[in-house]
Amino acid sequence: MSIFLVDEYKEMEPYVPGEQPKDKLYIKLNANETSLPPSPKVFEAISKSEIWNMSYYADPHCHEFRKAVASVYGVTEEEVFVGNGADEVLSFVLMSFFRRGMKIYFPDITYGFYRTYAKTYGLDMEEIPVKDDFSIDINDYMDLEGDIIFANPNNPTGRAIPIDDIEKLVKKNPERMVIVDEAYADYWGETCLPLATKYPNLVVVRTFSKSRNMAGTHIGFAIASKEIIADMNSIKFSFNPFNLNSVTMAAGIAAVKDTYYLDKCINRIVTNREQFKSDLENLGFHVIPSKANFVFCYHDTISSSELCEKLKEEGILTRHFADAKLDKYLRITIGTEQEMAVVLIAIKEILAEVKV
Amino acid sequence: MSIFLVDEYKEMEPYVPGEQPKDKLYIKLNANETSLPPSPKVFEAISKSEIWNMSYYADPHCHEFRKAVASVYGVTEEEVFVGNGADEVLSFVLMSFFRRGMKIYFPDITYGFYRTYAKTYGLDMEEIPVKDDFSIDINDYMDLEGDIIFANPNNPTGRAIPIDDIEKLVKKNPERMVIVDEAYADYWGETCLPLATKYPNLVVVRTFSKSRNMAGTHIGFAIASKEIIADMNSIKFSFNPFNLNSVTMAAGIAAVKDTYYLDKCINRIVTNREQFKSDLENLGFHVIPSKANFVFCYHDTISSSELCEKLKEEGILTRHFADAKLDKYLRITIGTEQEMAVVLIAIKEILAEVKV
Repeated sequence: MSIFLVDEYKEMEPYVPGEQPKDKLYIKLNANETSLPPSPKVFEAISKSEIWNMSYYADPHCHEFRKAVASVYGVTEEEVFVGNGADEVLSFVLMSFFRRGMKIYFPDITYGFYRTYAKTYGLDMEEIPVKDDFSIDINDYMDLEGDIIFANPNNPTGRAIPIDDIEKLVKKNPERMVIVDEAYADYWGETCLPLATKYPNLVVVRTFSKSRNMAGTHIGFAIASKEIIADMNSIKFSFNPFNLNSVTMAAGIAAVKDTYYLDKCINRIVTNREQFKSDLENLGFHVIPSKANFVFCYHDTISSSELCEKLKEEGILTRHFADAKLDKYLRITIGTEQEMAVVLIAIKEILAEVKV
Repeated sequence: MSIFLVDEYKEMEPYVPGEQPKDKLYIKLNANETSLPPSPKVFEAISKSEIWNMSYYADPHCHEFRKAVASVYGVTEEEVFVGNGADEVLSFVLMSFFRRGMKIYFPDITYGFYRTYAKTYGLDMEEIPVKDDFSIDINDYMDLEGDIIFANPNNPTGRAIPIDDIEKLVKKNPERMVIVDEAYADYWGETCLPLATKYPNLVVVRTFSKSRNMAGTHIGFAIASKEIIADMNSIKFSFNPFNLNSVTMAAGIAAVKDTYYLDKCINRIVTNREQFKSDLENLGFHVIPSKANFVFCYHDTISSSELCEKLKEEGILTRHFADAKLDKYLRITIGTEQEMAVVLIAIKEILAEVKV
C-alpha cells in the first residue's frame, strides 16, 4: 500500500475472480463461461480493415452499437448504455446513483461483486438472508428505505425471482431504484427488460459474457429510462469517454444481430443443463433447480471442497465458495455435451473411490 | 437528468472529445490520431483462434501484457498498470489517490479531461497560468500544498517541461504525488519513465493511441512504484476487474514488442512535423515549437475558427478550442506526407481567398 492511498479505501476487499490457471489444458467449468465460440458473424466482423480502423478513436457515443442493441430489444438508442463488461456497467450505475453512506440492499447470497463495490466505495449495505432453499421472498424487500440490487437468476444458486414480483416491488417503490442484473436471464427465458423502459426506477443490466459466449470480449449493457441512461453517459464521459474500443464494438454489433445463433446456443446449454441435473440426481446429488448456465449441487458422501479438488486433479475446474452459507455446495458451469459427459465420468470415479 | 442522480454530480461537465463526423471521408487531423495502421504484428496477433478465445474471460491481472510492457521499458511487472486507455488509467490514479475536496493543481492550458474529472468528482482544483509563450515554469509548482498533474509534452500547445525540472519538483516534494501524462512523449524523445520507479511519488501515464497508431484500441498504461501500482490494481478489482479484453491485450502485446515499427512511425511523424512547421512559417504562420504529433499555430490574416471552418468545407478536420486563452490558435495533427501536402494546398487556397 502506498502512503497516497485514500484512507477510505484502506479496508477495501477487491473482487476475486474465478481462477484461470494456464499450467495445462483444463475443462473449464468454474466461471460460467463456455467453450462454444462467439457467433460466426463475429469472426467475419473482425476483418483486417477493422483492425486497421483501430488507428482512429472509436465513437465514444457508441451510436451504431447502441442502435443495434436497441433494435434487437425493441427500445430506443437513448434507452441503452453499453460498457466494457457488465461489471463496468454496474459500476457506472452505482457511481451515478449512489454515494458514500447511501443504503443499498441485496440478498446475502448473490454475485460477490456487489459486496466488493459497496464496501470499497462506502455504501451502507445490508444483506438480506435468502430462504433455506435459496429462494428470495420479495416481501422482504417491499418496505425498505434504500435501493436494491438483484442478480436474476441469482448466482451462484440459479434461483430466479418471478418477474411479477419484481414489477410489484418497482411499482410500490417509485422513489427507490431497483437494479436487476440479468447476466443469466437468457437461460431462463424470462426477463425484466420490457419493464425497464416502463418504470423510471428500474435498471436492467445484461452481459455478452454468458449466452453470447463472449466472456473475453467483456461487453455489457443496461436498459433503463432515457434519463437514467443520460446520467450514466455523463458519468462515463467524466471517467472514461472511450470505454469500448472499435474492434470490441464491431464484434458486439455482429453478435447482437445474430439472434439465430444466440437462440441455438441457449437451447443447447439449457438442454445440457437439464440432462446434467438429471444425471447428477441419478448419482444421488442434491441439485438446486437452476435457471442459469450452471448447477449448484452437493453429494452426501463427499464434501464439495474435496470434490472440487479431486475434479481439479482430473483437469476439470469447478467453483467452490468457502463462505459458510455456500460451502456445502459446488457450482458447475454447463458446457458442451462432451464436457458434461467427461465431468460425469470423473464424478462417478470419485464417488466410487469414496465409497470404498 | 433522472431523480436518482447523486446531487454532487448535478453540475458535472462531461468531457467533449474531438468531433468524428461520418457523413463523408475526411482527412482527420483533429484528434491527434493517425491514418498509419497499427504494427503488422497486431494484424497477425488478432487471428481467428484469438477471436475464438474471446469465449473465455481474459486474465484480469493482465500478466502477459504487463510483462511485455515491463520488458520493453526496463521495469518489473509489479511496476506496470495497464488499462482501457490512458483516460481510464488516469481515472484509476485519481480515484485511488484523490477524494472529494482534495487539492489538485494543473496548468490552466492542458488536456481538458483533467478539469472534467476534477470537477465531476469534487476535487479542489487550481489551474496555474502558463507563460505567454505557453511554457510552464516549474517554480510555480515548487511550494504548493497538493498533488499535481502535467501533460508533458503539453496538449494542445506541444510545449514540454524539461525532465530535470520535473525531477527537481518530485524530489523536493516527497509527500506530494506528481502525475505526468506522457501521451505525446515519444515524439519528443525525452521521458520521466526512468524516474517513475526511482521516486515513490511519481506516476507516469502512457498511451498506445498516439505513437503506436492505436487510438481505436484504447490502451494506456502507468509506470510507478510497486506500492502505487498495487493500490491502483485494488481499485480496479473493485470497479471493473476485467478492464482489458483478450483481443485488446493480444493486440497490445504484439504492438509493444514491435519497437522497430514504433521507431519508424515516430521518425516519420517527427520529420513531417518539422517540415510542416517550416512550410507554415513560410506562409506567414506563427507556430509554437512542438514536441508532439501536432502543431499549434495561427495566421494574422484569418481567425483560426474561420480557418478551421474553411478547412472542414474541404473535408479536412482540425481542432479549434473556443476557450479565450486558446481561440487565437488552431491545432493541426501531423499525418502522412500526403495528408500534410493536401492540407498545405488547402491552406494556401484559403489564404489567397482572404487576401483578395
